[in-house]
Amino acid sequence: MQDLTTRDSAYMARAIALARKGLYTTDPNPRVGCVIVKGEGACARIVGEGFHARAGEAHAEIHALNAAGEGARGATAYVTLEPCSHTGRTGPCAVALIEAGVARVVVAMVDPNPQVSGRGIVLLEQAGIRVAVGLLEDEARALNPGFVSRMSRGLPFVRLKMAMSLDGRTAMGSGQSQWITGPEARRQVQRLRARSSAILCGVESVIMDDSRLTLRPEQLGLPDGEAIARRQPLRVIMDSTLRLPLAAACLREPGQTLVITTDAHSEEKRRKLEAAGAHIHVMPAYQAGRVSLADMLRFLASDHQVNEVLVETGATLAGALLDAGLVDELQLFVAPTLMGGEARPLFALPGLTEMADQKRLDIQDVRAVGRDWRIIARPVERAAQVPGT
Amino acid sequence: MQDLTTRDSAYMARAIALARKGLYTTDPNPRVGCVIVKGEGACARIVGEGFHARAGEAHAEIHALNAAGEGARGATAYVTLEPCSHTGRTGPCAVALIEAGVARVVVAMVDPNPQVSGRGIVLLEQAGIRVAVGLLEDEARALNPGFVSRMSRGLPFVRLKMAMSLDGRTAMGSGQSQWITGPEARRQVQRLRARSSAILCGVESVIMDDSRLTLRPEQLGLPDGEAIARRQPLRVIMDSTLRLPLAAACLREPGQTLVITTDAHSEEKRRKLEAAGAHIHVMPAYQAGRVSLADMLRFLASDHQVNEVLVETGATLAGALLDAGLVDELQLFVAPTLMGGEARPLFALPGLTEMADQKRLDIQDVRAVGRDWRIIARPVERAAQVPGT
Repeated sequence: MQDLTTRDSAYMARAIALARKGLYTTDPNPRVGCVIVKGEGACARIVGEGFHARAGEAHAEIHALNAAGEGARGATAYVTLEPCSHTGRTGPCAVALIEAGVARVVVAMVDPNPQVSGRGIVLLEQAGIRVAVGLLEDEARALNPGFVSRMSRGLPFVRLKMAMSLDGRTAMGSGQSQWITGPEARRQVQRLRARSSAILCGVESVIMDDSRLTLRPEQLGLPDGEAIARRQPLRVIMDSTLRLPLAAACLREPGQTLVITTDAHSEEKRRKLEAAGAHIHVMPAYQAGRVSLADMLRFLASDHQVNEVLVETGATLAGALLDAGLVDELQLFVAPTLMGGEARPLFALPGLTEMADQKRLDIQDVRAVGRDWRIIARPVERAAQVPGT
Repeated sequence: MQDLTTRDSAYMARAIALARKGLYTTDPNPRVGCVIVKGEGACARIVGEGFHARAGEAHAEIHALNAAGEGARGATAYVTLEPCSHTGRTGPCAVALIEAGVARVVVAMVDPNPQVSGRGIVLLEQAGIRVAVGLLEDEARALNPGFVSRMSRGLPFVRLKMAMSLDGRTAMGSGQSQWITGPEARRQVQRLRARSSAILCGVESVIMDDSRLTLRPEQLGLPDGEAIARRQPLRVIMDSTLRLPLAAACLREPGQTLVITTDAHSEEKRRKLEAAGAHIHVMPAYQAGRVSLADMLRFLASDHQVNEVLVETGATLAGALLDAGLVDELQLFVAPTLMGGEARPLFALPGLTEMADQKRLDIQDVRAVGRDWRIIARPVERAAQVPGT
């Protein structure tokens, strides 16, 4: 990185704050912000800024350049993600920056897509623009854990959310579980859904709770809740033998329900589910008649452009994902209550018998959410695999 | 309360801070602090202060009066607990305050012993001293939850400590549990032991872990660790049929081991355990051959002057205490790890089947302790029963 200043960091922080405005709406695109600054030192001022709001609409750089107009000439552009070099729906941003006559571009992170990574920077440099890369890179990567993961690993970022009692239970022995946590925690979950491309659930949980797995604008507690909820995350249900009830609430909701199944299903049930609105995807069955969870996630990334997946499910699927090393982040909503040893466990982890086998976590954040507590943690082995997200 | 000022609060806060210096040493007496202040307004200054350090040694007021000497005449004394009116080992403090000529006494809380409560205040008032009661009362009560409980309810304050994984497990299915939490959490547990009159444990846990249940000065991490560890808390083991091994490590440690049992034990085993150093106390057997936990706690309070009990045990005894409404405070040390659904639960709560039966908690504090987290909580129904502690 060439001579970056505190001032540069402040403008990039502003670009990151702008990018965050697209948190709930850019899917499947990344959240990106851009700030254009004219002048040097104490005379510097922002002449244009923007963020990417929605796939199909202009990129952050275009918004910022439009706002700056002639002011962009000789200015510095701060962008949270490397400007694109391909002719997409909105034209390559690198070319737009060149044509606007900017003198310098500061980029927080390169494009995570290995096939195009660095090309935007090369275009800019070939046009004689000074380029600095890597300012507030960690913060910029954290904006788009799913997009980065999909582009660099071909996998979505998997966020596992669970609501539990203080003694680690998710439901009574009877299956009764509504509601463990309070309204503030449920609002947080709605926001996790809103930022996700897909919600993943085991059919057992769908049968038990008949959850709708949708965004409810009134529960988001956000001023633009109605607009956000127009995009419903893809509902993905793991159901190896197609046990999903035809009357399941989630089939009647806006948005798509995708059922992942195996050959071990009846064709008749399949036709009925399809008639009820479900999309069915058949995958090979492996161990105990189940699909490969890694393959399923790879399919969601490749065929459905899924960036962030929110897993809302029971102990079996949650345990299997954890055991396969596929969970990137755990969000535990802990209610101040005890449910006892006969209540349902958080994770089935059948292979785990020795202390040495424990799944170690790195706790990132603990905070009060209404009368509940939220703990964000990452599996230690996973964190090592996903640098920077 | 008569016209108390911010200045009064500051001096009482100082008296409370002094009292806290006796946290690990006054047992079975309460922790008490005293500050004597001469002069008014901006000219006021502390002329003497003191705290109760150890049973058999002088009370806080006597230390403070000795330090003040003639300065006590016409001064105000701030005491965290009502001065005693009885002639105990150190003489009644109320009389000492009168004889020293103090003009005013500010008391944080009255004596919790209903048989003498208020008598010290009456003595002072009869001698013409102005008395104010109730300043920082909650803070003063919090100094002595066990003493207050024993005096007012005839029961110790029961603090249940458990070390668990984030999914609420205390040991692997095999019983393996050393160590779930890290050295910093274990130091905190040593300090909990140090402030307790007794440590309570089920025989099953003793057999499983062969814990010594002692204070180890080097693990306390306190400058006066050696002095503190000279008083070992009473070790109480619940063992209805005397299964405690003669070779149990705790029998070879300094301090007393008290085994609570029922008639269902062999006389020979009893003689051998007594020869090995154990004290045996027989209580009637009720449900499933077990003693009444409430009666056992009452016995500890009345016959062993037990103020605070630290319970360090497994799911069965912990669950039974919780179910009987006998737990005043939970301290959960949570390790950033997952142990899975086959590991041992935090609480056996066999009667609990409906969401409405949940044991609700009031979370008081959540904080990082090394790489672990400590959660302090109180059962909601219990909190309602024990006002002010």
